[in-house]
Amino acid sequence: MKKTYRTEEEKKKIITRLNIINGQLEGIKRMISDDAYCNDVLIQLSAVSSSVKSLSNYVLENHLYTCMKDGIKKDDDEVIEEVIGLFKKFNK
Amino acid sequence: MKKTYRTEEEKKKIITRLNIINGQLEGIKRMISDDAYCNDVLIQLSAVSSSVKSLSNYVLENHLYTCMKDGIKKDDDEVIEEVIGLFKKFNK
Amino acid sequence: MKKTYRTEEEKKKIITRLNIINGQLEGIKRMISDDAYCNDVLIQLSAVSSSVKSLSNYVLENHLYTCMKDGIKKDDDEVIEEVIGLFKKFNK
Amino acid sequence: MKKTYRTEEEKKKIITRLNIINGQLEGIKRMISDDAYCNDVLIQLSAVSSSVKSLSNYVLENHLYTCMKDGIKKDDDEVIEEVIGLFKKFNK
Repeated sequence: MKKTYRTEEEKKKIITRLNIINGQLEGIKRMISDDAYCNDVLIQLSAVSSSVKSLSNYVLENHLYTCMKDGIKKDDDEVIEEVIGLFKKFNK
Repeated sequence: MKKTYRTEEEKKKIITRLNIINGQLEGIKRMISDDAYCNDVLIQLSAVSSSVKSLSNYVLENHLYTCMKDGIKKDDDEVIEEVIGLFKKFNK
Repeated sequence: MKKTYRTEEEKKKIITRLNIINGQLEGIKRMISDDAYCNDVLIQLSAVSSSVKSLSNYVLENHLYTCMKDGIKKDDDEVIEEVIGLFKKFNK
Repeated sequence: MKKTYRTEEEKKKIITRLNIINGQLEGIKRMISDDAYCNDVLIQLSAVSSSVKSLSNYVLENHLYTCMKDGIKKDDDEVIEEVIGLFKKFNK
């Protein structure tokens, strides 16, 4: 099974960003409890979407510079196939 | 300030979906702690994106059938402007 | 069959924007003939995507202020269903 | 200036797909002239969006297997940066 070894600092950075998204979702839960107007809820949901995209782009950036680069240097084409699969998933 | 009054059942439904997304994010946090392969992390992030989109579409659907419809019947054009704003936010 | 009657000015406006997109595609065809670098081709394709999105948002904006508004005032819920369908199509 | 040399067959394939998108746009122009209902126009515009995305994914796929792979083997990191730029452009 493939693994990606990240530094503690790197792990912390990603987990912090995931916690921020969790916090955004908690805020939306409170909005729902407080009868917030749909339009305001939807604006917050679009902000969550943007955060998830931005974190995805960040993880992908690291992936290309490390795992993918190493894979290609070892003539592992599977890693290219995976990146294409990701591109298709995110560019539907 | 505009409000949307939802039934208890409706609130529960939306909050349950938000909790599921929170759970997906917790899963990704565990993946990062466990040195999961970037590609696997990215697939899970794209799943979170899909969940957020699907919940957004659900909230929007209710919004159009209730707040927007009522607003238009009262000749409130602001609600149309808001929907256009949402469309632009989600269709960037 | 439903129709949308647009002024001549409005028709001209939309057709001009469609012609611009056609022009962008002609440019990409020339790039392919001239062995343009994939990255440059892809940047132009993303520009076409943006033009199509922007035109879609423009047509939708008119649609909501005219057909949808009129439909709702006549208690025609089908038009709301259609808008939801569009939102789902564009927010996949 | 970077170039991508494609076989005649490959060029033809991409140009055919660009011609198809041109045809879709011509169809939408006719719809506008014929007072087509906005919803129908928007459904066709979303079909154009899908065609452009699908062609972009196709060109990217070739790009990763050729230019990018070769670049990385020559220790050219610029090509990775470019791919990240593309990902961000398409995953806004």
